[in-house]
Amino acid sequence: MEGYTARLVVGLVSAAVTSAAHGQAPAAAPETPGSVLAAAPAGDWTPLAPDDLLVVELGGGARVVVALADGFAPVHAANIRRLAHDHWYDGLAVERVQDDYVAQWGDPDGRKPADAAVVAKPPAEYDRPAAGLPIRWLPDRDAYAARTGVAGVFPVAVGEDGRAWLTHCYGAVGVGRDLNPDTGTGAELYAVIGQPARALDRNIAVVGRVVSGIEALSSLPRGTADLGFYSDPSQRLPITRVRLASDLAPDERPRLEALRPESASYTRWLRVKANRQDSFFVRAAGAVDLCNALPPVRARRP
Amino acid sequence: MEGYTARLVVGLVSAAVTSAAHGQAPAAAPETPGSVLAAAPAGDWTPLAPDDLLVVELGGGARVVVALADGFAPVHAANIRRLAHDHWYDGLAVERVQDDYVAQWGDPDGRKPADAAVVAKPPAEYDRPAAGLPIRWLPDRDAYAARTGVAGVFPVAVGEDGRAWLTHCYGAVGVGRDLNPDTGTGAELYAVIGQPARALDRNIAVVGRVVSGIEALSSLPRGTADLGFYSDPSQRLPITRVRLASDLAPDERPRLEALRPESASYTRWLRVKANRQDSFFVRAAGAVDLCNALPPVRARRP
Repeated sequence: MEGYTARLVVGLVSAAVTSAAHGQAPAAAPETPGSVLAAAPAGDWTPLAPDDLLVVELGGGARVVVALADGFAPVHAANIRRLAHDHWYDGLAVERVQDDYVAQWGDPDGRKPADAAVVAKPPAEYDRPAAGLPIRWLPDRDAYAARTGVAGVFPVAVGEDGRAWLTHCYGAVGVGRDLNPDTGTGAELYAVIGQPARALDRNIAVVGRVVSGIEALSSLPRGTADLGFYSDPSQRLPITRVRLASDLAPDERPRLEALRPESASYTRWLRVKANRQDSFFVRAAGAVDLCNALPPVRARRP
Repeated sequence: MEGYTARLVVGLVSAAVTSAAHGQAPAAAPETPGSVLAAAPAGDWTPLAPDDLLVVELGGGARVVVALADGFAPVHAANIRRLAHDHWYDGLAVERVQDDYVAQWGDPDGRKPADAAVVAKPPAEYDRPAAGLPIRWLPDRDAYAARTGVAGVFPVAVGEDGRAWLTHCYGAVGVGRDLNPDTGTGAELYAVIGQPARALDRNIAVVGRVVSGIEALSSLPRGTADLGFYSDPSQRLPITRVRLASDLAPDERPRLEALRPESASYTRWLRVKANRQDSFFVRAAGAVDLCNALPPVRARRP
């Protein structure tokens, strides 16, 4: 593991500071994915619009921020916006945490009535035409799809049939549904907290990606009932408030920005990830798989 | 998500029981990965030998069981066996949990002296010839390697150069090292708790796979210092005892068995995973990536 001990990492930083303090130029260090991001000009980053961010606040104060992907599942996304706007999620709970799979939250008993504006039987928005999507293609192979790429902050796969879909990478957010495809109003949402669950791709509406705070879900105790549901309702973690960021007061909104996939910095970041030359590495991977190519998101710089 | 609510799952089970109770044959259900495993004959499973299992016991009582892969990193594996046999790990701690990456345990200050039999500068056992390995090849593409397969319970990638290596799938266990490759005695171990960290492949000695109890590591609070180290030593989770299962009393040993990759049941399980026909699925994935093809491990049947 790089960073074998905390001690070592501190030691390396000190050495660089010391040589700078003595007026010596430090030896040019090979680029790392982190150094590429640190050096990326402001114009290579784009703010995430408050109207596209769902802010999920959990008991204990943690915040999970989901970037919504309206272009892939518009009816589902509209439902979620409606439910958030109505404060419908407030007081519900995280009810299921299945290791290496998903954390799921919503209305465990499926009984809370929703606004009539919520579409009760949304269409099966599980893929869409690839045409018209601003896809930044990725060069490496994928086990499941003919081609892959990213669009905005989202991972996209495209099949031989010209259809495109959002993939179940770590942090992907989808809409839980019943066995019938025309179920799943947005009342139950889940986030992937393990290896990519690509067998779910094109079988369920993926509506976004957690861009901040996933650790508040991934570090929860695993449920011990079937499928990782909590066997005792007292184990559920309350959801205190869910809002679109645009419905929050300006000083409460998350301020995030994403690396633009069309930027030179994204291209450089990908290339450095595939070809690590910094001292820990003895052999570069030569590739970056789709789920490791998600455009980085960070707190906005002032 | 399949299993949209606990209520629904219970409902489906009840319906099957009801029709059986009324003397009607339930409609033949399509196979699922779970039903294939449940139907696999005893001979398709193989017990995991106690001498190949490292049992890591954590404060609070949880147990993590690691299957050791001696054939890939023999000097590193011998070191770990030696350290466990000497009770050297007892009293150390989990010191680093980085979200979507690794949990790491060992000697945070790197100061505990080890037995002279522990090789202080083990060779860089990061890959080996593919020849001689009993690889059950997998049919689908991989972003990083020319071919992939499984050997025993382990995921294996093979390059165009004929070298084979263990891959950093969820649960993979590797030996932390310093920047120099000939470091990393086994004093620091890590397990992958997120997406496959394939950029680490061939850069570090992978020594095994967690075959039971990974959730005790993956659900830990994430560290907030650089690289996920705990900023406050009081956040560390103590390691109470680490032993080879063969050094434990017989009634304390984990009793586990793995599906044999050469068995007809493994082939069937893979095929069903790639071609889900059960009612939730509207479209089969058509493939299974390497890290989703790890031979299942379960408690031994009496």
